[in-house]
Amino acid sequence: MTPLTARFVACLVAAAVPAVAAFAASAPTMQGFTAASAEKESALEARFDAGLSAKEMKGWLERMSSAPNQVGSPHDKANAEFMLEEFKKWGWDASIETFYVLYPTPKRELLELVAPNHYRATLTEPPVAGDRSSQHPVGALPPYNVYGADGDVTGEVVYVNYGMPSDYKALERRGVSVKGRIALARYGGGWRGLKPKLAYEHGAIGCLIYSDPKDDGYGAADIYPAGAGRPAMSLQRGSVADMPIYSGDPLTPGIGATKDAPRLKREDAKTILKIPVLPISYADARPILESLKGLRAPANFRGGLPFSYHLGPGPAKVHLVIESDWSLRPVYDVIAKLKGSEFPDEWVIRGNHHDGWVFGASDPLSGNVSMMGEMKAIGALAAQGWRPRRTLVYASWDGEEAGLLGSTEWVETHADELAQHAVVYLNSDSNSSGFLYAGGSHSLQRLVAEVAGGVNDPSGSATVLARTRADSIIEGLEGDGDGQREAHELLTGGELALGPLGSGSDFTPFLQHAGIASLNLGFGDNEPGGVYHSIYDSFDHYIKVEDPELAYGVALAEVAGHTMLRLADADLLPLRAQEFASTVNRYVEEIDALAEHMRVQTRDTGQLIDEHIFELGSQHLDPVGPPPREAPVPFLNFAPLKNAAAALTTSAKTFDERYAATIAAPAGLTHERLAAVNAELRRAEQALLSADGLPGRGWYRHMVYAPGLHTGYGAKTLPAVREAVEERHWAEVPTDVTATTAALEAYRAVLEAATAKLQ
Amino acid sequence: MTPLTARFVACLVAAAVPAVAAFAASAPTMQGFTAASAEKESALEARFDAGLSAKEMKGWLERMSSAPNQVGSPHDKANAEFMLEEFKKWGWDASIETFYVLYPTPKRELLELVAPNHYRATLTEPPVAGDRSSQHPVGALPPYNVYGADGDVTGEVVYVNYGMPSDYKALERRGVSVKGRIALARYGGGWRGLKPKLAYEHGAIGCLIYSDPKDDGYGAADIYPAGAGRPAMSLQRGSVADMPIYSGDPLTPGIGATKDAPRLKREDAKTILKIPVLPISYADARPILESLKGLRAPANFRGGLPFSYHLGPGPAKVHLVIESDWSLRPVYDVIAKLKGSEFPDEWVIRGNHHDGWVFGASDPLSGNVSMMGEMKAIGALAAQGWRPRRTLVYASWDGEEAGLLGSTEWVETHADELAQHAVVYLNSDSNSSGFLYAGGSHSLQRLVAEVAGGVNDPSGSATVLARTRADSIIEGLEGDGDGQREAHELLTGGELALGPLGSGSDFTPFLQHAGIASLNLGFGDNEPGGVYHSIYDSFDHYIKVEDPELAYGVALAEVAGHTMLRLADADLLPLRAQEFASTVNRYVEEIDALAEHMRVQTRDTGQLIDEHIFELGSQHLDPVGPPPREAPVPFLNFAPLKNAAAALTTSAKTFDERYAATIAAPAGLTHERLAAVNAELRRAEQALLSADGLPGRGWYRHMVYAPGLHTGYGAKTLPAVREAVEERHWAEVPTDVTATTAALEAYRAVLEAATAKLQ
Repeated sequence: MTPLTARFVACLVAAAVPAVAAFAASAPTMQGFTAASAEKESALEARFDAGLSAKEMKGWLERMSSAPNQVGSPHDKANAEFMLEEFKKWGWDASIETFYVLYPTPKRELLELVAPNHYRATLTEPPVAGDRSSQHPVGALPPYNVYGADGDVTGEVVYVNYGMPSDYKALERRGVSVKGRIALARYGGGWRGLKPKLAYEHGAIGCLIYSDPKDDGYGAADIYPAGAGRPAMSLQRGSVADMPIYSGDPLTPGIGATKDAPRLKREDAKTILKIPVLPISYADARPILESLKGLRAPANFRGGLPFSYHLGPGPAKVHLVIESDWSLRPVYDVIAKLKGSEFPDEWVIRGNHHDGWVFGASDPLSGNVSMMGEMKAIGALAAQGWRPRRTLVYASWDGEEAGLLGSTEWVETHADELAQHAVVYLNSDSNSSGFLYAGGSHSLQRLVAEVAGGVNDPSGSATVLARTRADSIIEGLEGDGDGQREAHELLTGGELALGPLGSGSDFTPFLQHAGIASLNLGFGDNEPGGVYHSIYDSFDHYIKVEDPELAYGVALAEVAGHTMLRLADADLLPLRAQEFASTVNRYVEEIDALAEHMRVQTRDTGQLIDEHIFELGSQHLDPVGPPPREAPVPFLNFAPLKNAAAALTTSAKTFDERYAATIAAPAGLTHERLAAVNAELRRAEQALLSADGLPGRGWYRHMVYAPGLHTGYGAKTLPAVREAVEERHWAEVPTDVTATTAALEAYRAVLEAATAKLQ
Repeated sequence: MTPLTARFVACLVAAAVPAVAAFAASAPTMQGFTAASAEKESALEARFDAGLSAKEMKGWLERMSSAPNQVGSPHDKANAEFMLEEFKKWGWDASIETFYVLYPTPKRELLELVAPNHYRATLTEPPVAGDRSSQHPVGALPPYNVYGADGDVTGEVVYVNYGMPSDYKALERRGVSVKGRIALARYGGGWRGLKPKLAYEHGAIGCLIYSDPKDDGYGAADIYPAGAGRPAMSLQRGSVADMPIYSGDPLTPGIGATKDAPRLKREDAKTILKIPVLPISYADARPILESLKGLRAPANFRGGLPFSYHLGPGPAKVHLVIESDWSLRPVYDVIAKLKGSEFPDEWVIRGNHHDGWVFGASDPLSGNVSMMGEMKAIGALAAQGWRPRRTLVYASWDGEEAGLLGSTEWVETHADELAQHAVVYLNSDSNSSGFLYAGGSHSLQRLVAEVAGGVNDPSGSATVLARTRADSIIEGLEGDGDGQREAHELLTGGELALGPLGSGSDFTPFLQHAGIASLNLGFGDNEPGGVYHSIYDSFDHYIKVEDPELAYGVALAEVAGHTMLRLADADLLPLRAQEFASTVNRYVEEIDALAEHMRVQTRDTGQLIDEHIFELGSQHLDPVGPPPREAPVPFLNFAPLKNAAAALTTSAKTFDERYAATIAAPAGLTHERLAAVNAELRRAEQALLSADGLPGRGWYRHMVYAPGLHTGYGAKTLPAVREAVEERHWAEVPTDVTATTAALEAYRAVLEAATAKLQ
């Protein structure tokens, strides 16, 4: 669903990562394995690797992306059934689990410019030379943003840039309002679903979202078919459900959308938007944008079309009609299990979705076929008599694009079992050539670094870890203060760190609702995804532009597969505490610094307002009024958080040391003792849940990681406290500090319990 | 010549500048005036203001911009003669001083794309609706870059972005060379003349410079006639003489280009470039740019044309022919004097040029007619019997556009007199609506702030100072670390500071060759000058877009006129030392920090090279190799500079205190004592000259202010030391530190002498 954003970054924990690790690691460190177990595991991984076939992955990709495969389409169902058969053939205990979700599809769409002249939007993506599937998009839905409202509205247009909160502030200071009008936003700058939501909150009656060529067209790349850039008539479909409130079926928050589940009335579903919204191409946006007058758009609003951008309102006026079929549709999750030989009640879970917006070759099938490769290779190991010590659960989710439907309903349905059995959830989605992007729970950071240090990158003789470290250093040094700091830490021996997870793929229900330690892995480079969610995300495109021989499909299968195998076979679960502790400490410091920064900025802005600086400094061609005056930022008590974070550091160090000592001298590590320690480790992440959840969105219960209420995909860490500060809800800060502190203390208690059982 | 860049910025010296000064300052502080003199001076300024007429200025502007007025054109001469007659009528002792300069003009120009298809560049600026003079550009020269070489070259094209040193580094890391090829650069990012110079130094055989619409076209503004943006077929003429070596006639460096002056052979003139160069519009550049292949241009190379930019080389190949008439031409400086009643040998000098590239309404005539307004108002005061105490010298220069020809030759001709008599040189050039931009010698900072605090801004009831302060704060807060610091200093009572002067207008020979304390003043906003040096810089454009009623023409005349009158009439010359001292201290700190920054960066880059980070982190679509390895940065001895700067601080404080005490209790301030102190103050700036001049460019003798060898217009402060550090000429640093220290010590000695005479 989402372009890769979570990624390795440098971490404060210094660790002995070799600068340019050779491929064949001579003496692998293997978190959680005794020396004897590690040796066996290395041999197993080599056999696993031998079972991976890029050619097979490419064949599956071609087959599965051969027809539109959105929810409800025949090919989506056929893909699920194809996988079911294959999984069974490969020796997995597989079945399809079906849920019934609200899934609107367009019956009628119209967009026309009605003033100052007439233009009817084509809303069509024409065939591109050399792209076979674009010639025959039979069964594709008209382009739309799922979970927007139906409507028939006519109004003046206002150009709102990315349609983010800062854009509305800029408009307000220029006296431009969307009230009673139609907001025209460009893609980018924040999550798609926020654009119509914020437009609605500011009074707009409709919203259009177009792809500006500066962002993922010719301003960013060569245009497909020459490169990865978006063609003029291409557009980005996508969900606009209010997922920062909850993911999954809008009618069944918190419970599985089984056939007979109790359902909300549609009008009571909080995640369905209130105004119509439509994604359009820049070919269709251009006549509208070009006929806007009013103030010239400020510099950061200007896109790549060859004229001067204006804000409006009007004289451009558009007529927008959307009428949908609001039926329930089935989603088909394909679930496959391989029972653990020793700890069958400990589940190591892996998933990737299989539904696309049209052909979905890159998103999601590139990741899905890589996962299938893992499954076939594991099946082959099993056929030779090997069994994982823990149970492996692999899932190919349906309905991710619309709102993580398949994964969320499955997690909600199996919540109690997951609380008992789940060890880790490992997610992937789109995959491409490039560098490993890895995000997730920081207790898994060392594990991922170890695995990535043992997988060769398809580009040559370096490991995946070395390539990713190099990319992180280069990007960091070119970036802001944080990037520079991270790069310097990496250059002085720092460990590659996981990025925190926000949302945008199927890890969300596992991590943020169910409290299961999670990872999200995928390869990519820094190229814009210019065919993202368009008809041109095709097999031909993938083979031409992304990963011609699926070499990175194999690399992903190796990284994810080794991670799964280690989680399945480790003696002690391969989690560590110090990386998590140091990361949490950094988050606390960030929030403290943020509040201080806001205090200074609020005071300065107040002085500017008092001294009429904004009026005096206003330019005649770009008159900008003062911002609203904010109340002074109070001093806030973060001491409880700081104390909890400090205590966590101490407990984490003790735990990691005891863990290392135990695994180094494993005599006496009986099945029962392993099970007892691992039971503690398994529930550690769940300790970070709060029963009440986050303020205003109780479905999200994780107190360390969440998607931002106003970022959508982007992570907010320690979200209750951080968002209270960001949103200036000062009165709520103490409650949020208390709840977050409690979660950190609960985590520490689990660590202490685990430490005790290690002794 | 140059868009306004030098400007007020915040200064470290705290001073009591009222936040929003009311227009009518009740008790004016007036640097250098006793209380009694100040009162008279205020009354005089009010009478001066009453003599200013926006209507007259507008009339002169229309008349003088009615035909092309480049050097050698009939209308340029007619304008000089018109001014001469007017100045005489107004009571000035006026004459025309003529110099004879090398001034090539095009005889033949051809630019054609010869592969992969054919296109012949129009090199023509067509009429624009509503712009009358663009309909009849009779007498305009073909567009060209004066002092480029003649040539007939054909070669593959390489797109070099702005053609600055960092761009060549980026190209080198991508394996792209201009050797034997033709460089296509866009305007911006640094001085025009550097583009062909650097192209030549990298082996190019020709250079094209086009105006990208992102920089001053639709990406930056509405297109003329709707706004200030550059039309598609408009282009920027301009000089490409290597002025950072010396300004003025290329054949007579250091001496006046009188009829019989000894002249270099053309091939020995260091400031004439070696390859042909041509300015073109983006309409003409587009067919070339669009047919380039090779690597995709990196993000910061991409402009505003609606396609993906590539670097080449080729397949675009162009044929470029330039053939010129290399005649000598006359330049006509109009010089007008009003003899001082009391100190006739002390000259206060004012100048603005009168030659344009075509019609030159904004550049330079807007500033020139404002200066004429001053002269007429001063003439009226003189007609009523008033006389300045010091001699006023007003000059309307010719030939500024080609290379500060008229001003440089005049300064070189009158060097000895100027060394004896000159007090200050005050320059202006283009003027427009907006905020006051002021740059100059920091001994004049307080004077300018006082004057600007006493002039009402045409936009309303605030002073020019209050508006400019507000603009500086807003821009500073939106800017980088330096901007933020400056804004915070302004918010906490800091004084508005002068920007240091680089080059780009006629102050250069006065300040940087002759050591005369200088100022450069003008109004403008932050809009791009999209008709800059084009045929559309016309009266109609000026009245429509820039300053419709010449209200800012009057404001400039008030600010410049009051400054001139105060310099002419002050008891003690209105210079202060502490602002200069604190500014110099800051420059020393900057250079120290720069060396430290370079040391860390060089070490880090070395580590990246050692660890093969650039190869490992290279992206397949944008392969970038490592930069060249630099030798480690040695530790450098800046102690002599620091000691000199510290001593300057002490001496400056003593001087300013004694000066203030003297002017507050002026009994005993005889004519002789005033003359004695003022003689010291007059020579203070000259103490900052070094006889040897700057390394490799001895014509530039000022050791504090210079145009950068690789920035052109942009200032380099403490240039000998700073450029040695920037260019990594480590072995030269000690010599440069010694020379710069000597200049600061010499300045301090003058201050001490002045202090002694104040007692």
